[in-house]
Amino acid sequence: QEVNKLLELKSQLGDEAPQKFTLKTPKGTRDYGPQQMAVRNRVLEKIITVFKRHGAETIDTPVFELKEVLTGKYGEDSKLIYDLADQGGEILSLRYDLTVPFARYLAMNKISNVKRYQIAKVYRRDNPAMTKGRYREFYQCDFDIAGQYDPMIPDAECVRVAVEILSSLDIGNFMVKVNHRRLLDGLFEACGIPSQSFRTACSSVDKLDKSPWEEVRAEMVGEKQLNPDAVDKVGEYVRLHGDAELADKLIADPKFDVTYLFPGETPNHVENSTDGPVSVGSVAGGGRYDNLVGMFDSKGKQVPCVGISIGVERIFSILEAKLANEKANSALLRTTEIEAYVASAQKNLLPERMKLCRELWDAGVKVETSYKQNPKLLAQLQYCEERGIPFALVLGEAEIAQGVVKLREVSSRKEEDIPRANLAEEIRKRLQS
Amino acid sequence: QEVNKLLELKSQLGDEAPQKFTLKTPKGTRDYGPQQMAVRNRVLEKIITVFKRHGAETIDTPVFELKEVLTGKYGEDSKLIYDLADQGGEILSLRYDLTVPFARYLAMNKISNVKRYQIAKVYRRDNPAMTKGRYREFYQCDFDIAGQYDPMIPDAECVRVAVEILSSLDIGNFMVKVNHRRLLDGLFEACGIPSQSFRTACSSVDKLDKSPWEEVRAEMVGEKQLNPDAVDKVGEYVRLHGDAELADKLIADPKFDVTYLFPGETPNHVENSTDGPVSVGSVAGGGRYDNLVGMFDSKGKQVPCVGISIGVERIFSILEAKLANEKANSALLRTTEIEAYVASAQKNLLPERMKLCRELWDAGVKVETSYKQNPKLLAQLQYCEERGIPFALVLGEAEIAQGVVKLREVSSRKEEDIPRANLAEEIRKRLQS
Repeated sequence: QEVNKLLELKSQLGDEAPQKFTLKTPKGTRDYGPQQMAVRNRVLEKIITVFKRHGAETIDTPVFELKEVLTGKYGEDSKLIYDLADQGGEILSLRYDLTVPFARYLAMNKISNVKRYQIAKVYRRDNPAMTKGRYREFYQCDFDIAGQYDPMIPDAECVRVAVEILSSLDIGNFMVKVNHRRLLDGLFEACGIPSQSFRTACSSVDKLDKSPWEEVRAEMVGEKQLNPDAVDKVGEYVRLHGDAELADKLIADPKFDVTYLFPGETPNHVENSTDGPVSVGSVAGGGRYDNLVGMFDSKGKQVPCVGISIGVERIFSILEAKLANEKANSALLRTTEIEAYVASAQKNLLPERMKLCRELWDAGVKVETSYKQNPKLLAQLQYCEERGIPFALVLGEAEIAQGVVKLREVSSRKEEDIPRANLAEEIRKRLQS
Repeated sequence: QEVNKLLELKSQLGDEAPQKFTLKTPKGTRDYGPQQMAVRNRVLEKIITVFKRHGAETIDTPVFELKEVLTGKYGEDSKLIYDLADQGGEILSLRYDLTVPFARYLAMNKISNVKRYQIAKVYRRDNPAMTKGRYREFYQCDFDIAGQYDPMIPDAECVRVAVEILSSLDIGNFMVKVNHRRLLDGLFEACGIPSQSFRTACSSVDKLDKSPWEEVRAEMVGEKQLNPDAVDKVGEYVRLHGDAELADKLIADPKFDVTYLFPGETPNHVENSTDGPVSVGSVAGGGRYDNLVGMFDSKGKQVPCVGISIGVERIFSILEAKLANEKANSALLRTTEIEAYVASAQKNLLPERMKLCRELWDAGVKVETSYKQNPKLLAQLQYCEERGIPFALVLGEAEIAQGVVKLREVSSRKEEDIPRANLAEEIRKRLQS
């Protein structure tokens, strides 16, 4: 009814003159065309496969929340939240991420443990650098483990999930950098830094991103007055980074107990990046948020959480760029899954084409036919070639009389008459080989 | 980086006292929990299978549009559009349906033909009757064919798509009612109604929903002064409805040419409905909108369109209700796809459990293990039963020493030692049989 009413309204509007428009999508947003959707869906499918392999359930939350749910969660970034106009009723804002709505969901439903993934768009009134794949409307792709568990066990699985995902996507080399305060504190302790100095030592070590160890050491020993021997021991460890050597060394090191980590993962520090044809910086990130759910619970009941977020927009950009390169090499990205095209060589065979389509649809074969009464054969075959459709099924009066269909392999142009009763099976057999 | 910054901000907030909240989703919206998502994803998968069988591509558009894109498209329903607050910059509104954004997309990209589906949420500030499955945020699930084609051919495919979808979903009986002005006009003409009276005759015939033919006839013959013989002929046809008899009769009738319709579809009139355990009225609808794209084109260039929209929210409601019934009969709807659970009978085997998980994940098996250091065996096995996980893989020191794993079929509780190297294959084999 709703649809009919709408269509009626729309048809009435047809009499008006065309309006003058700036024909565009809102700033920082974009349409995804069929090719982009094909890339996007392949990426998301691979990611979901990994999430499911780890037993994650999925949930969905509304695109907007009561404004007060978001208030106070994002610090100064709150100014980037999209508010809805006050049209009477509740005051609403678009979600800024998937984490706060997830925490609200947990508290509201008194859920104390769950492993869930959620893939959905979030909204930020940022000034986007769209060439870098940053938008005001963009996907987040989150995997989180909520619940009171023994330390580091769910955390390790999050790292593992990120590794499986990045390995399954065709995005080149990447490096996982694990930077856990608990590890760093343990390292400080083992090296002889007093616990009251952990925080200040940590802020120095953080600078290793930009500064050489000598400068960091000077700050720790000088300004921060830490014991030079202890600092040198710290230096031995924090300058190691990124490969299996470190994992082996730490596992073998009697000072550490790293059995919490899934053997084979690299317990280390910093952030993710990719090399390869396109280098894009961070493509995933994550961490713990143990206090967020408690902010929503009237009694402040905590549900510790840890999660990772896959930067799918950047991954889309990498793969779209790759695709554009490959296209120059004339590879074809199909945007449909059509297996066969019903064509006719003669006029007035539309009902016969439709009948054949129906038989094949009933048999689960993906087919289409021209929407023209009397399309030209050449045009029909050309359509198959342009679209990468594997088979053309050519019907003429002779074929109909004999109960066969001319099955044409589009790439080789080889043709063979196939009895109609065997057609669906024959197509399936040929597609498998 | 963004994620890290966010997590940092969140962790700082942990010190604050819990706030007092009305913990709810906005009016007319809901969260989908894991069970609802499982139902939803199964429905959408089946629908997408049909769309793909018919060669549809998919696109995505932003959740909001420039307000002026939506203005003037929905008549008095415009008051139901959600506007975004004016925070500087463009004036935006949330999409009200998928049809107007699709038309904007076609005009903006000068696309003159495409067959596309789109599944996404739309927003209406309606007063929702949520018990009936109506919300302010809800899914639309559209299939549209844009392009200048021979009459009725894409329209017939839309009907066929609706039939395939409703047949593939487990929602009971349904009736497709086709009501095309072109058919009705042809019928009027064949019966001898003068063309200037088509519109008034049509408005009488429309009343057959609520009134018996005698009343409609009286109005046509009396108030509208139509020829009684012609009206009686019309009556012969419009009182037929809903089954194959009519299609056969019309196909055989020399007065009509219905070869445009896919043989076997029912060319008739009105709207869709379902019977069965839950009766819910219309579950799909559609029609032509030939003038909408032209409203966005600066030269008023038209792209004729026809499409259908599947009422997935109602379908979700039907299936959720069914599920609730079946649950009483203790059927289990799984919300994860976990195939095996790695359990241990002894203490201190966490690293071994993790190692086994890793081997199986590498082999593509869906496994999980407890996040506790030393979970109790009974608790682990109970978890498998509650969750419908087919296999438990029990590890003890004896099994590790022998290089085997105890494979336990959770439902029968039968156990067998399997060499570790064959484990993934064995699980896969047993799942297939």
